[in-house]
Amino acid sequence: MATLKEVGERALIDRIIKNMRTSSCVGPGDDAACIDINGSKVVVSTDVVTFERHLAKGMTMEQFGWLAAAVNFSDIASMGARPAGILAAVMLPPETDENVLYDIMNGIDQCAEFCDTEVLGGDTKSGHGSVCGTALGICDHNVLMRSGAMPGDLVAMTGSLGSASAGWYASLNDIYDKDTFSAVALPVPRVKEGIFLSANDIATACMDISDGLSTTAAAICGSSGVGMDIMWESLPKGKGVDRICKKLKLSPRELMLNGGGEYELMFTFPRDRLDLLHSSDADISVIGMVTSGKTINIITNGKSEPLENKGYEHFTKD
Amino acid sequence: MATLKEVGERALIDRIIKNMRTSSCVGPGDDAACIDINGSKVVVSTDVVTFERHLAKGMTMEQFGWLAAAVNFSDIASMGARPAGILAAVMLPPETDENVLYDIMNGIDQCAEFCDTEVLGGDTKSGHGSVCGTALGICDHNVLMRSGAMPGDLVAMTGSLGSASAGWYASLNDIYDKDTFSAVALPVPRVKEGIFLSANDIATACMDISDGLSTTAAAICGSSGVGMDIMWESLPKGKGVDRICKKLKLSPRELMLNGGGEYELMFTFPRDRLDLLHSSDADISVIGMVTSGKTINIITNGKSEPLENKGYEHFTKD
Repeated sequence: MATLKEVGERALIDRIIKNMRTSSCVGPGDDAACIDINGSKVVVSTDVVTFERHLAKGMTMEQFGWLAAAVNFSDIASMGARPAGILAAVMLPPETDENVLYDIMNGIDQCAEFCDTEVLGGDTKSGHGSVCGTALGICDHNVLMRSGAMPGDLVAMTGSLGSASAGWYASLNDIYDKDTFSAVALPVPRVKEGIFLSANDIATACMDISDGLSTTAAAICGSSGVGMDIMWESLPKGKGVDRICKKLKLSPRELMLNGGGEYELMFTFPRDRLDLLHSSDADISVIGMVTSGKTINIITNGKSEPLENKGYEHFTKD
Repeated sequence: MATLKEVGERALIDRIIKNMRTSSCVGPGDDAACIDINGSKVVVSTDVVTFERHLAKGMTMEQFGWLAAAVNFSDIASMGARPAGILAAVMLPPETDENVLYDIMNGIDQCAEFCDTEVLGGDTKSGHGSVCGTALGICDHNVLMRSGAMPGDLVAMTGSLGSASAGWYASLNDIYDKDTFSAVALPVPRVKEGIFLSANDIATACMDISDGLSTTAAAICGSSGVGMDIMWESLPKGKGVDRICKKLKLSPRELMLNGGGEYELMFTFPRDRLDLLHSSDADISVIGMVTSGKTINIITNGKSEPLENKGYEHFTKD
């Protein structure tokens, strides 16, 4: 018998899935589940954010609400779906000022508006400060899963890496840094990019990088039965990462490879889709390729070494 | 400025709805939201259960999981929909034995199987012991809302009243009582009944009694702009209510009118549907009628008095 912390989230989810009745739907295991409703592909995902873990120093309650919505819309985006609404169960101590609740809900509403959808409902309970969001989406084209990567595909990602981690450490150390703080407090769910990748039949696998690049690469490779070579020099470094790392004596490489909370999309695609990808104005970088091997490697200055999956676990407080 | 506890859940939700952008969907405000997905009516609801509030003494973790699922399927049932899946975000302290998580998920899975559907996915986070469930459903017929009650309609409910409350107090006082304990630990979501009421065009308004009869009556009357007369003698008393109330010196009337956690359906319907209703084998009692007045009355031995809305609030710990 082991504790949740000892087992770790990924293994827990695997064991849960193994224990339960076989599911007819896509996911559990993907960013969102996908069910068929009278011929429509409906995706749905639930994710919790807590004061304890996600409320960076200096964040407003509106920003916390935005974050709660964004992490859920990010999961919808990674499936290539368009958002169709969000529910929010908010748990706060009974002695909390009522305005805290309204501010959180306003932040959720603003993120929903940004994603061209709306708040559908929710719940309020006494608790220690958390929001359990559930986002719905509709897939008009291909559902993007983790399992479709093929050897020979290229690997790409939206946006950049490291800013959210850097911003988290900055706020922990009472450094206010605009670029990295906004990466923590107002992450942008990559909804347009996800729909683009699905509608144009580009991505063979897709997942958000919420738990860090190494974890995301491991999940896609594990689900697809492939390996991956990631080119260190091709990884897009986020604004302010070097600045904060210098100040706090942190390793930019560590933050970029293993830091969480980025909410970018990582995806694989066939090489013949490269021109189409470049024709879009999306902020996308090609960062590696899918191999037929069993390992995930990071290649630095031409030297290959295994990319250790150090992505953080939700049951370890660090 | 007031605290959440001072304002109370119902007023908080009203204020949130008032503050936010106008929603195109049915709900917020109903048991579940209803959105149109390519012509299909999809209902979705989220509800949190916590160890602190919902874990009666003696309940197993499987039972807690069942409860977490049942409260959500009850909301789907009250809209007249057939369940299409459930997601569960489980929050537990990191030092918890992993088997607790598996047992909770098994309980959720068992309730999903009972409701002819399945677990679609979820989330696991460090927390103080709670499950945030989100259930989906599909409405093949009329969506049952709180707002459709018409003066002249009859009022009815499924099952009985008071057992869950009685069971809760029994467990608090270390009395193990089989009938009332199972009402607390293994509530039955009235899915079949909800679908029957919708498919046969019976109910004009419907809601689950999860927060007590008086609160439910107030919500339906408030949404529908009607009054209600409830007949005390027609209210079906749950098994074990008298026994537990006698032991603990509690008032059966108080439990039946204001006790929460029953998960029965209360609904209104036109008189010409009475024969159809009686033709079913569902366990249904007619308990009153809808009036054109503005008050909700409880009639006892022919004497009418206002039925005070004392339904419990989620931000008051009692």
